[in-house]
Amino acid sequence: VSTDRAEVAAYLQAHKEENIARTREYLRQPTVSSNGRGIREGAELLTGYLRELGCQEVTLLETAGYPGVWAYLDSGAKHTLISYCMYDTKPAREDLWPVPPFAAALEDLPGLGRAVLAPGAKSRKAPYIQWLNALRAVLAVRGKLPVNIAFLAEGEENLGSPHYGDFIDQYRDRLKGAVGCLAPGACQGRDGNVEIHLGHKGLLYLKLTASGRSWGRGPQATSGHGMAQTLVDSPVWHLVAALNVLYNPDQDRVLVPGFYDQLRPPTAQESAEIHELATQFRDLPWQKVLPGIAGAKTSRDMLSHEEAFERYLYGPSFNINGIAAGYTGPGSPVFTLPNEAFAQFDIRLPRGYRTREVADLIRRHLDAEGFGDIELEVLAAHDPARTPVDSPFVRAWDALIREQVKQVEYWPYSGGGGPWSKFTSDFGIPVLFDAGLGHGGKAGGPGEFLVLESEGPIADSVACEAFYAEFLDRVADL
Amino acid sequence: VSTDRAEVAAYLQAHKEENIARTREYLRQPTVSSNGRGIREGAELLTGYLRELGCQEVTLLETAGYPGVWAYLDSGAKHTLISYCMYDTKPAREDLWPVPPFAAALEDLPGLGRAVLAPGAKSRKAPYIQWLNALRAVLAVRGKLPVNIAFLAEGEENLGSPHYGDFIDQYRDRLKGAVGCLAPGACQGRDGNVEIHLGHKGLLYLKLTASGRSWGRGPQATSGHGMAQTLVDSPVWHLVAALNVLYNPDQDRVLVPGFYDQLRPPTAQESAEIHELATQFRDLPWQKVLPGIAGAKTSRDMLSHEEAFERYLYGPSFNINGIAAGYTGPGSPVFTLPNEAFAQFDIRLPRGYRTREVADLIRRHLDAEGFGDIELEVLAAHDPARTPVDSPFVRAWDALIREQVKQVEYWPYSGGGGPWSKFTSDFGIPVLFDAGLGHGGKAGGPGEFLVLESEGPIADSVACEAFYAEFLDRVADL
Repeated sequence: VSTDRAEVAAYLQAHKEENIARTREYLRQPTVSSNGRGIREGAELLTGYLRELGCQEVTLLETAGYPGVWAYLDSGAKHTLISYCMYDTKPAREDLWPVPPFAAALEDLPGLGRAVLAPGAKSRKAPYIQWLNALRAVLAVRGKLPVNIAFLAEGEENLGSPHYGDFIDQYRDRLKGAVGCLAPGACQGRDGNVEIHLGHKGLLYLKLTASGRSWGRGPQATSGHGMAQTLVDSPVWHLVAALNVLYNPDQDRVLVPGFYDQLRPPTAQESAEIHELATQFRDLPWQKVLPGIAGAKTSRDMLSHEEAFERYLYGPSFNINGIAAGYTGPGSPVFTLPNEAFAQFDIRLPRGYRTREVADLIRRHLDAEGFGDIELEVLAAHDPARTPVDSPFVRAWDALIREQVKQVEYWPYSGGGGPWSKFTSDFGIPVLFDAGLGHGGKAGGPGEFLVLESEGPIADSVACEAFYAEFLDRVADL
Repeated sequence: VSTDRAEVAAYLQAHKEENIARTREYLRQPTVSSNGRGIREGAELLTGYLRELGCQEVTLLETAGYPGVWAYLDSGAKHTLISYCMYDTKPAREDLWPVPPFAAALEDLPGLGRAVLAPGAKSRKAPYIQWLNALRAVLAVRGKLPVNIAFLAEGEENLGSPHYGDFIDQYRDRLKGAVGCLAPGACQGRDGNVEIHLGHKGLLYLKLTASGRSWGRGPQATSGHGMAQTLVDSPVWHLVAALNVLYNPDQDRVLVPGFYDQLRPPTAQESAEIHELATQFRDLPWQKVLPGIAGAKTSRDMLSHEEAFERYLYGPSFNINGIAAGYTGPGSPVFTLPNEAFAQFDIRLPRGYRTREVADLIRRHLDAEGFGDIELEVLAAHDPARTPVDSPFVRAWDALIREQVKQVEYWPYSGGGGPWSKFTSDFGIPVLFDAGLGHGGKAGGPGEFLVLESEGPIADSVACEAFYAEFLDRVADL
């Protein structure tokens, strides 16, 4: 196998330009799930790659939204590895991009190296092609892979993955014995070190809509004139009143009965992990360590590292992601008594919570408080799940990556969440998410990039691909 | 004068096509205040018309927004009449228009007659040109007008008239002795009858903004990721909490201390007027009589006509005109912890209220309740005002219009309001608003029209112009 390994690396080196070209080809195809641009063409490009690879089954999974992709590469091996993939990206604000976003331009980024710039360069189209390049190299050198691979892709990750759970249910018999799930992604920092989240908090994404029609009060089919509010009820005020019974921001307290019943304090082991992380980052304010805080000031500033990390990892959130009604344009008033108002929530729930049960609690509470007319839509519900750091799958990965990088940090949970958690929560399959070499940045924003050549500690594209190839052997040996 | 009158009518008839062409020319010039399209060109077109008319003074009034226009036509007469004008329109959703909106197309409307279709056809560019056509005819026949005219125009009516009060202040010495103010407008219904509002409720248009920066909590310069809300405060929830201390929708009760101090019940005379209106409309549900209700259902459905009319005319409203924060697009979630949230209110206040005092009460209440950081902007503040039905100015108009139409209904107040109220509230000048013949509709929306030729009871363009011409003589005789 060690000869093979060198041969695979040599093959990847020899095909470097071709593999970069493939990566750029995939990036040039827009796949923007928020407006549908290029999505279907992107799904077809992906199924083409999977057919080329020799998958015996390749199926486009039609949904009410954008299609998923199922493919299976049977190597006659003992183990099956699941490969998660999202092929969609966020929309590109072309006016803010430094280069045309769908040119997949190659640029030298100071201090980093030569990188490809495009939506999906980091999250997560380019790493996925590196993963497929690795598989192609192994197949070319050895004729077959050491593991079977079940590919399950979606084009709706940026929409909250409304159908991925259905895909898993549809293929549960094919998936349930898998040795693990790998989601390719560039997880090196600028310094080459690796940070990985072994679990994800639950995500409950809800939309509440107050409308005159459901309420039987206020303007019905269309909005009225604002001046009529002296006689006509307002669905906007009705929604505001409903929000008020859900959460008390002064006390950071969710007012839904039973909401905290599923909350459990950290176990002794979890506390030890928190302490370890807190010690590791003791030289930085926690506001700079924890992602998503983005320079915020907070009334919880006095929290210690331990307290802040505990809340981040094991505490719930109850965030209004968006709210809208009536006239929201610039200065110019259009006087209106809106017939509809909505608010969207992303609620992050720690381990122990069942997201759909929380949606039910909220529904019951709204009903009990006189807001039975307010529509509650569950736009996404992904339960929390964690892969143990001492699972053989993680240990194999850990041993391999430590050959390449100096430092590996494990976080028990990420603040975010996604549908891949279901592999763990439903089948106990360990998941390694964003678990490849490489460094990228500006995910979802202008100038999103992935480094392809670097003189520093960041793995170049050939090293990234060789890592995935080698990992297959480690998995086969489990 | 009666010979003159026939001559003016003959002149208007002879110049009918030219006058319609002038009307269409003005309508073809976009003057959209919400996005600024054509506004300055429209103001210049208007000043050109006023110069042609022979005004000795014509001045563009520059503002931080769009310009106003002051013009004075000195006829050496005893009385000066103020002419209010808005030259802006709402934006046109071209995709919804039955004809190109800025072609000022002439179309036959079934049951109505030949009409011109364009933004401003009804509200209020076309009626204003009919008014200028009338003045030009009188000048052509007689060489001069029987009254002096002070023209004061704005291009920001659809923005809440932020600068019109300044214009009035700037010319207060020229305006204060005026005999009355006329705002040309087509006030006939389809049946040819006339309904006119002699007063306007006050309008207080406010914007409340909660931001991380002002608050010193939550995301500051940019939004954070929603998952951080477990540690970071949300300006959206902060705004919702502030809304909650302003108004109780269950009880339809404004919670601002002192808010109801300025509220007075109807006087005996006002009650008598209410009763008279209620009797007049007793065959229709009040929901169909009062404007702006637009098919709404209301918890106040059980109110009698008298009660509903009383609330509409003499009760305050506290309407959320718009609210927005975070991600408000379709389905696709962009997970965000917004750094800013705002709500806009149009608050309609009956006679007796001082709008700016109410803004001060709200500011003080927010401060007292711990929302001192929330920014309060007064986007418009027009005090309520009413012109008495028995003022000589109204009596003169009444006598003239009853020569032309069967039925005239006077409403003491409209639910709406505008900056022309200041003529009355500051100087006691009677105002006749939308006080011309003619019929139009779909104001501000697709297919906005004004009827120019009709075989039914609606005045045609020549009759509309002749009415304004004749009204000048009636005013001169006061």
